[in-house]
Amino acid sequence: MTQARIGLIGLGTMGAALALNIAEKGFPIAVWNRTTEVTRRFHAEAGALAERVIPTESLADLVAAIAPPRAIILMVPAGQAVDDQIAALAPLLDPEDLVIDAGNANFHDTNRRAAAGLPMRFLGMGVSGGEEGARHGPAIMGGGARADWDRVAPIMEAIAARAEDGTPCATWMGEAGAGHFVKTVHNGIEYADMQMIAEIYGLMRDGMAMPAPGIGETFATWNQGPLKSYLIEISAAVSRAADPLTGAPMLDVILDAAGQKGTGRWTAIEAQHLAAPIPVIDAAVMARNVSARVTERKAGEARFGAGPQPLDLALTELEAALIAGKILCYAQGFAMIEAAGRAFGWQLDLPGIARVWRAGCIIRSAMLNDMAAALAEDPSRNLVLAPFFAQRLEATIPALRRVVATALLNGHGVPALAAGLGWFDLMRTGRGTANMIQAQRDFFGAHGFDRLDGQDSHHGPWGKTS
Amino acid sequence: MTQARIGLIGLGTMGAALALNIAEKGFPIAVWNRTTEVTRRFHAEAGALAERVIPTESLADLVAAIAPPRAIILMVPAGQAVDDQIAALAPLLDPEDLVIDAGNANFHDTNRRAAAGLPMRFLGMGVSGGEEGARHGPAIMGGGARADWDRVAPIMEAIAARAEDGTPCATWMGEAGAGHFVKTVHNGIEYADMQMIAEIYGLMRDGMAMPAPGIGETFATWNQGPLKSYLIEISAAVSRAADPLTGAPMLDVILDAAGQKGTGRWTAIEAQHLAAPIPVIDAAVMARNVSARVTERKAGEARFGAGPQPLDLALTELEAALIAGKILCYAQGFAMIEAAGRAFGWQLDLPGIARVWRAGCIIRSAMLNDMAAALAEDPSRNLVLAPFFAQRLEATIPALRRVVATALLNGHGVPALAAGLGWFDLMRTGRGTANMIQAQRDFFGAHGFDRLDGQDSHHGPWGKTS
Repeated sequence: MTQARIGLIGLGTMGAALALNIAEKGFPIAVWNRTTEVTRRFHAEAGALAERVIPTESLADLVAAIAPPRAIILMVPAGQAVDDQIAALAPLLDPEDLVIDAGNANFHDTNRRAAAGLPMRFLGMGVSGGEEGARHGPAIMGGGARADWDRVAPIMEAIAARAEDGTPCATWMGEAGAGHFVKTVHNGIEYADMQMIAEIYGLMRDGMAMPAPGIGETFATWNQGPLKSYLIEISAAVSRAADPLTGAPMLDVILDAAGQKGTGRWTAIEAQHLAAPIPVIDAAVMARNVSARVTERKAGEARFGAGPQPLDLALTELEAALIAGKILCYAQGFAMIEAAGRAFGWQLDLPGIARVWRAGCIIRSAMLNDMAAALAEDPSRNLVLAPFFAQRLEATIPALRRVVATALLNGHGVPALAAGLGWFDLMRTGRGTANMIQAQRDFFGAHGFDRLDGQDSHHGPWGKTS
Repeated sequence: MTQARIGLIGLGTMGAALALNIAEKGFPIAVWNRTTEVTRRFHAEAGALAERVIPTESLADLVAAIAPPRAIILMVPAGQAVDDQIAALAPLLDPEDLVIDAGNANFHDTNRRAAAGLPMRFLGMGVSGGEEGARHGPAIMGGGARADWDRVAPIMEAIAARAEDGTPCATWMGEAGAGHFVKTVHNGIEYADMQMIAEIYGLMRDGMAMPAPGIGETFATWNQGPLKSYLIEISAAVSRAADPLTGAPMLDVILDAAGQKGTGRWTAIEAQHLAAPIPVIDAAVMARNVSARVTERKAGEARFGAGPQPLDLALTELEAALIAGKILCYAQGFAMIEAAGRAFGWQLDLPGIARVWRAGCIIRSAMLNDMAAALAEDPSRNLVLAPFFAQRLEATIPALRRVVATALLNGHGVPALAAGLGWFDLMRTGRGTANMIQAQRDFFGAHGFDRLDGQDSHHGPWGKTS
């Protein structure tokens, strides 16, 4: 057997899927897992692909099985396990060998590792799409030295998903942690997309008395239009599914308490550091946190009486509101990415990021094609001001206003949709209300303010006694 | 002259004010500033208080001037300057001497210093109230070992503001960074209170065509009722003030771009770490960030046309909405403090925190009396469920609904008020919509879910092909 073209450490769900994908695309791959039995079983169950899989039972064997200069993918839990694995590999590798952390790293850790002067080359790579994506075509966001990415780009492009125009969804994003950073924002947007869909679902369920299968039909219809996306597609599927145990709609038996693994939170925290607001994502993270407080919510309902009331809304209004909310959410996300590029000195290619998200990842959608085009016109212009999306917002914002206002009047929780609209109204108001805040700050803290007329007088005549 | 009872390093605005306050209350105080000229001028300008101020021109002189066991307040810029000052003091102090960081520290730094095994005793102390508060009575939030606090409590209680019932607003909050943590949340709430006032001001200005002095009259009237607070009082004052240069209302010449020094952001970030949502504060930080993007906002207005439209709302509705928003914001803030107590192992006294905020600090208000009473009944119960506030919410939430909905229908930015309402509706909904999110997550990531009926079946029959 020839030497492997690449190696992979960590044969969990994601690692195993990625290794099979690589083998399937014709690249011999050496694999190693901490538990040898896992490695043996993986090889035994690889079927026809087994001939391109080299199972190894020690790190030294793994390294020896790969053709130099080597490339080794780490798919181990984020955090200390990555540092430990790098340390274990260090004495076995040459300086030109390349380690690729393909796990769900916090990009600050990737920045730290990139700056640490490791004894080998190093890439941080965000891989999106879950198990199915990893197996059949994920979206891949690479970060590190461009030359290191170029060495493995043929493999990554071969295993990645392809957009409808045939472009592989595997792209170098920038230096150091840029790939993991873009993956983090992806996950934040994923939270927001899911939350806005859940809010619209709630309006249909509680405000329009629609049973789950009918809601599923509606999502399926919307999936033919501007909302066409993986998340709308699977929302249709889960809404139509029946519980094998009870025959009831599956959605109606699932507890309404959502977990979070923390990447939405990372996005929210980083946006704070960057002073780049992403209120729709913030609201989505908030809603997950509140959803987990089931006992408190039940106490709230007991105290404050009847839940959400019937709504006088049309399905077309809900669809338009969701379109508007989605545009606003992505506009915030891309603005955050743009701010990060400036803050971290990364040459982030915003249209390229929109393109890499078009297939393979959870937030893949038709609209990302249009976003890539709009961002290509002027990446530093907020997406809401791009002509295509400004027109679409003009057409859909009235529905978003009516949906949010009607929901709030009738006690429906729509925090993410409301957060998008609230941000939009601030962003379209030339004369805002922060002059009041500046006056207050000057009053109590002598912080000073600027004047509209540019005059050189920066404190108010508050006449207070001190 | 007798030895000083306490020392103070850093005679900037806050340090000088605090030193005069201490001297005025009868405690001889030794002071030192990096620039000797500042120390001399401070002493020269201290008037009758100069006899209780011992100016010193070296750290050694400062230490020698204080009666052992010594206590020295640091009022230097947060961050490295504090570490540097501690290091410079270390060789001069005895192990039982006490250093008190009274600056605006990030509480994580205070935790780190407390854990570092410093060669002296150490307290971190949040001081709120600006220059005027420091001079005549701040709110003081102490953190560190209780025994160390007790040593200086007589001084801190003497210089602190007093609530109407005579209680000094100086309290030990808990170990290590607890004092600076509570101060941080205070500042986040301050951001939120100010933002909600600014939103209501905007509705009066842009939706009801009220000139600034009339808005000031309205705030002054509200300051006689449940909203009675320092921030409403100064909102009335700044609304009524006229610009000496032009004669126009002062508010009308101030640029609507608010600065932030970062403490609101710290609160938002910490809430994410704690998974304790504070969406009203988040929205306030967001609004400040957007306000700074003046050029982008003007472009938004140019593209999306006419700004906010006239509103059909009564002033009594605005007042009620602000009352509701304020209760919701504080409910979130206290829930965050409660979560921090559990996370950090601090025995935080929630009613005591409400009491310490009743005077001296920027967010002092009549409502904090009622909050202290409600939290004393059951600190772990969310404030919205306390009978007093649940009743008040029942009376005011309908107005909040109408105000937010009307504002959103007419293009007014009210993100903080809307965030409070959005959170409330999630908190009062026994059956939410996160079941959709759980179904989606199980579909694409096999994350699993819990069932309402408790059956042991945690994945959906999605029947997808992988």
